[in-house]
Amino acid sequence: MRILSGVQSSGRLHIGNYYGALRQFVQLQDEGEGYYFIANLHALTTVRDPKAALALTREAAMAYLSLGLDPKKAVLFRQSDVREVLELYWILGTVTPHAHLERAHSYKDKVAKGISPDFGLFAYPVLMAADILLYSADFVPVGKDQIQHIEFARDWAVKFNTQYVPGYDPADPEGKERGHAPGILKLPAARIQETTQTVPGVDGQKMSKSYGNTIELFGDEKEIKKRIMSIKTDSTPVDAPKPLPTQSPPPGLVSDAPLYDLLKLMLPESEFAEVDATWRAGGKGYGDYKKKLLEAYHAAFGPARQRYAELAADPGEVERILQDGASRARAEASRLMDRVRKAVGVP
Amino acid sequence: MRILSGVQSSGRLHIGNYYGALRQFVQLQDEGEGYYFIANLHALTTVRDPKAALALTREAAMAYLSLGLDPKKAVLFRQSDVREVLELYWILGTVTPHAHLERAHSYKDKVAKGISPDFGLFAYPVLMAADILLYSADFVPVGKDQIQHIEFARDWAVKFNTQYVPGYDPADPEGKERGHAPGILKLPAARIQETTQTVPGVDGQKMSKSYGNTIELFGDEKEIKKRIMSIKTDSTPVDAPKPLPTQSPPPGLVSDAPLYDLLKLMLPESEFAEVDATWRAGGKGYGDYKKKLLEAYHAAFGPARQRYAELAADPGEVERILQDGASRARAEASRLMDRVRKAVGVP
Repeated sequence: MRILSGVQSSGRLHIGNYYGALRQFVQLQDEGEGYYFIANLHALTTVRDPKAALALTREAAMAYLSLGLDPKKAVLFRQSDVREVLELYWILGTVTPHAHLERAHSYKDKVAKGISPDFGLFAYPVLMAADILLYSADFVPVGKDQIQHIEFARDWAVKFNTQYVPGYDPADPEGKERGHAPGILKLPAARIQETTQTVPGVDGQKMSKSYGNTIELFGDEKEIKKRIMSIKTDSTPVDAPKPLPTQSPPPGLVSDAPLYDLLKLMLPESEFAEVDATWRAGGKGYGDYKKKLLEAYHAAFGPARQRYAELAADPGEVERILQDGASRARAEASRLMDRVRKAVGVP
Repeated sequence: MRILSGVQSSGRLHIGNYYGALRQFVQLQDEGEGYYFIANLHALTTVRDPKAALALTREAAMAYLSLGLDPKKAVLFRQSDVREVLELYWILGTVTPHAHLERAHSYKDKVAKGISPDFGLFAYPVLMAADILLYSADFVPVGKDQIQHIEFARDWAVKFNTQYVPGYDPADPEGKERGHAPGILKLPAARIQETTQTVPGVDGQKMSKSYGNTIELFGDEKEIKKRIMSIKTDSTPVDAPKPLPTQSPPPGLVSDAPLYDLLKLMLPESEFAEVDATWRAGGKGYGDYKKKLLEAYHAAFGPARQRYAELAADPGEVERILQDGASRARAEASRLMDRVRKAVGVP
């Protein structure tokens, strides 16, 4: 079973990325053959600075490795190192209905915000589908907001197979019945990460680079402390019980007690039980809880941060891992593209 | 000076293609360094049959060679053999305004006809711009209906250079003034083929594959004869003067005397003067003129048809020429892409 997962290298990773996606993605390396790529071509739609583009790509790779991705087990590579993906992107685009892309959430959201989009943003789902189909992925772990991308990839794979594979029957995509042929492009399944959590940022909004409310995974230690100490609280005195997060936080927020929610997220269950008791009873100040969260942060990410620092000091090793991953991914991509080219009639 | 010209391998070539474009394109090989490519990736937006796709690609190459393109002088290659074009296609797309593509004639025409377009058709101008910019073409010979494509390529080159080349000034794209840097992507100029002629088909409509009214360049001899003999005429008797084409032919036609116009196009001037005299005076029948046209066709294309037959019998030679062209084109493409990748921050 092959699992494909990509991360766009468009910003520095934060704990929202970790609990929201990366943690689960890394765990999947034990369930099958994991293909993990850094989507640095996709990132070009937003990152317009070459130094930043290179640094963010490298940082994303170091993050995966630091968080436990094992390059002996999984294939870790840069999207741009397997140029076949752009060939499939074009060929797939010739069977992709234009109308599908006009319905794409990522595009519609930008247009609704009054942003005048570039072609690259519009074309984004086609490249993403090529990423998935190029490696014949069995499934792709996604958040709920990403399901549409997998549906697109499936639809377009069916369109391609129907057009170009003699004997293909969309009702029997693997060609199990007599007289049917399996598709060249394998239909991926979405695996929805039910455990995915929305992580509140220091202001109670969803943690997101664009809100400037993140706590970075591998950022500077002082900056991390400053961020944690700046988590938004109210003026409840030390002695008094602290207000618990409400089930329906005010509009725009995902939590009206982000400190509590972050402690719940980051502390081991037994430790959190203690915090919860004093929070409800009163007697401790928000400053104490913030210190507790800082400790929890270092307990959770200390070892990963250590590995990250070691990798940062050894860029040759990171590059070697990425090159090795690219060559494994390319072998797979090249096999598929030979079949795709033959099917469409490209020498 | 580098001249770039492409022909889409989406149908069998006819004399409308020749007088409308190919003749002039081939002549340009003497004016500079000619890059001629067979746009077989573009063709995938309409040709959905692999055998046809391969055959049409090969036939387009044989046509160029038969009509006088000299592979020692010019570079003749298949679009798909230089994969760098798809890399530039993606990267260029990240600076291409989506709104430009909605204005593209090729797309708007299809939508106006009620055709529900594929993404490939919408993306078509981006790949075309990549074709042009990848080889730093100085100019591109085009018909009037193609000028927009060159304007797009220029606009997007400026956008790319402005975004990614420090010191680039759009007012000084070649960086001639002190302190300015030349762009990485060279702005191509359109060279409008003023001599381009609209060739009538056998029914008086514009000669076009989609109207089924063509006279092929390299088709079967009997079929050519049949086509020429079927040219639409009226019932003017042999003795009477024949009606000349009107300046404003009826709607839908480009000529209401296609036989006269085809003779004018294909006969040497002195021979045509004789035809013109008897046409106006009467005394010859349409059948005589059709035989004359058939002779003119063979006089004009006989040698090319002979070369075409020789090439068809020697597929290895055609392949060798295309491989050689691809390797020369790739060297150029690869140099440019190294600079483009560096500029955007892709390893």
